[in-house]
Amino acid sequence: MNQFEPQDPQYRNKVEESFNQQEVMKTIGATLLSVEPGRVEIDLAYSIKLTQQDGFLHAGIVSTVVDSACGYSAFSLMPEGTSVLSIEFKINFLKPAMGERFKAIGRVRKPGRTITVTEGELIAYGNNTETAVATMAATMMCLKNRENE
Amino acid sequence: MNQFEPQDPQYRNKVEESFNQQEVMKTIGATLLSVEPGRVEIDLAYSIKLTQQDGFLHAGIVSTVVDSACGYSAFSLMPEGTSVLSIEFKINFLKPAMGERFKAIGRVRKPGRTITVTEGELIAYGNNTETAVATMAATMMCLKNRENE
Amino acid sequence: MNQFEPQDPQYRNKVEESFNQQEVMKTIGATLLSVEPGRVEIDLAYSIKLTQQDGFLHAGIVSTVVDSACGYSAFSLMPEGTSVLSIEFKINFLKPAMGERFKAIGRVRKPGRTITVTEGELIAYGNNTETAVATMAATMMCLKNRENE
Amino acid sequence: MNQFEPQDPQYRNKVEESFNQQEVMKTIGATLLSVEPGRVEIDLAYSIKLTQQDGFLHAGIVSTVVDSACGYSAFSLMPEGTSVLSIEFKINFLKPAMGERFKAIGRVRKPGRTITVTEGELIAYGNNTETAVATMAATMMCLKNRENE
Repeated sequence: MNQFEPQDPQYRNKVEESFNQQEVMKTIGATLLSVEPGRVEIDLAYSIKLTQQDGFLHAGIVSTVVDSACGYSAFSLMPEGTSVLSIEFKINFLKPAMGERFKAIGRVRKPGRTITVTEGELIAYGNNTETAVATMAATMMCLKNRENE
Repeated sequence: MNQFEPQDPQYRNKVEESFNQQEVMKTIGATLLSVEPGRVEIDLAYSIKLTQQDGFLHAGIVSTVVDSACGYSAFSLMPEGTSVLSIEFKINFLKPAMGERFKAIGRVRKPGRTITVTEGELIAYGNNTETAVATMAATMMCLKNRENE
Repeated sequence: MNQFEPQDPQYRNKVEESFNQQEVMKTIGATLLSVEPGRVEIDLAYSIKLTQQDGFLHAGIVSTVVDSACGYSAFSLMPEGTSVLSIEFKINFLKPAMGERFKAIGRVRKPGRTITVTEGELIAYGNNTETAVATMAATMMCLKNRENE
Repeated sequence: MNQFEPQDPQYRNKVEESFNQQEVMKTIGATLLSVEPGRVEIDLAYSIKLTQQDGFLHAGIVSTVVDSACGYSAFSLMPEGTSVLSIEFKINFLKPAMGERFKAIGRVRKPGRTITVTEGELIAYGNNTETAVATMAATMMCLKNRENE
């Protein structure tokens, strides 16, 4: 259903490299779980340092990992010599973000030369249950890297 | 134009208390700048620890401070004995989030007994300029606190 | 996966009745295709009367049928004596809305006592192909009907 | 504050021409009120033909006029030989769309070579009052017209 052909054979490397340059991922303790063409997963452990007033993950931290998963799902399908940029996203919170671990999933819904539409979600794991916490719709843009920089 | 009458005379205290319980604000170095009825501002200093792959603030960190500003602007108008919850938000990124300091502004657009519609933005300051970085529309919900907890 | 238990055994009747009261559906020529618990489909034929400047269905007409499909998917799960209200939605346009017929699909993503999160899409049919035209995320609210009205 | 310099001196003509090609505007009875650089207004009279189940304007009809106002506000700043396309929008409903007349306002928030971010609203007029009914955030894309068509 969601099987995409990557244009850049180095799609996995370039996503990993870019992810490793996101300092905020180290700060919050997020790691890259998997990179497939048009689909990326990110792992995040619960930490009190990331919480809002009730001890749940803050909505913005949920957004941080789901936005990156969406952005990199789009990036995995972009040609060599390009960058990815979040134009906008919308996120609905379905449940409080409580759990031991979280998985952010980003998927390409519709790839495009300039604009790629993605969708994402956050799943919480804990007490042998998994719960959908949030769903995102995010619009990503492909930028050509300038040559002499 | 946007002058609201707070229902809870302790609106400023309760926002400050709740903000101080958001551990993520300490983690990213954000502080509460001002609390007016229906309007809240949050300050954030640039830090390499909060960046995406190009050295700009990550879109999710932008979302973190603007969502909190929006949520607390709604909370400032809610009656005593209630909590605020983000149902959903949508954010457009206008410019890369580059600067020395950032100010998140949250404003109530339409208060309501159950649902409050807010709007927010992030302004970047640096090199004697200020730049609008992002705009948000966020829907907040008022929850009655359970009595015997 | 998306199997929900309706609280109101008359869920189908009440959706049909409400749909028939939406005058705009007659104006644009939309009809109710199916009503299942948490899932509603609406049919719309292409008409030049509904187009934007390039001869495609206008984005707002796409929104009209998908919003109704989402709203009624939520309404199908709400208890007796309640109404449904669109709080907000977000729609991404994947392709120009060109075709002979269109099907709007609304699905409940997360039901709730007050707030129900739904997702929708529009599919275009024509020349023996089907194309996803748009995806929506919509937040619906359950209102109790006032008794003496 | 929001004063923009149009790149195309024929900005008003091209918006009017394109608006007149939107057949849906005739169908719903909407007319172009004003076109300024980066700001467009559209008038709509209340009609029972445009209503949802409670006699209010349907959310999708609200979206139709506000989306067009937003799209044309973006188009007014685009260079000659281009078209405008709605990529996505998000709309919050503040009040039921009840009134005798409605005005949709679209404004450019941030123009761009490819992507223009706009914001819109719908105002209802009736009984000597005016009421904000909805607010929109919409992302518009500039497309170059193909030369040999």
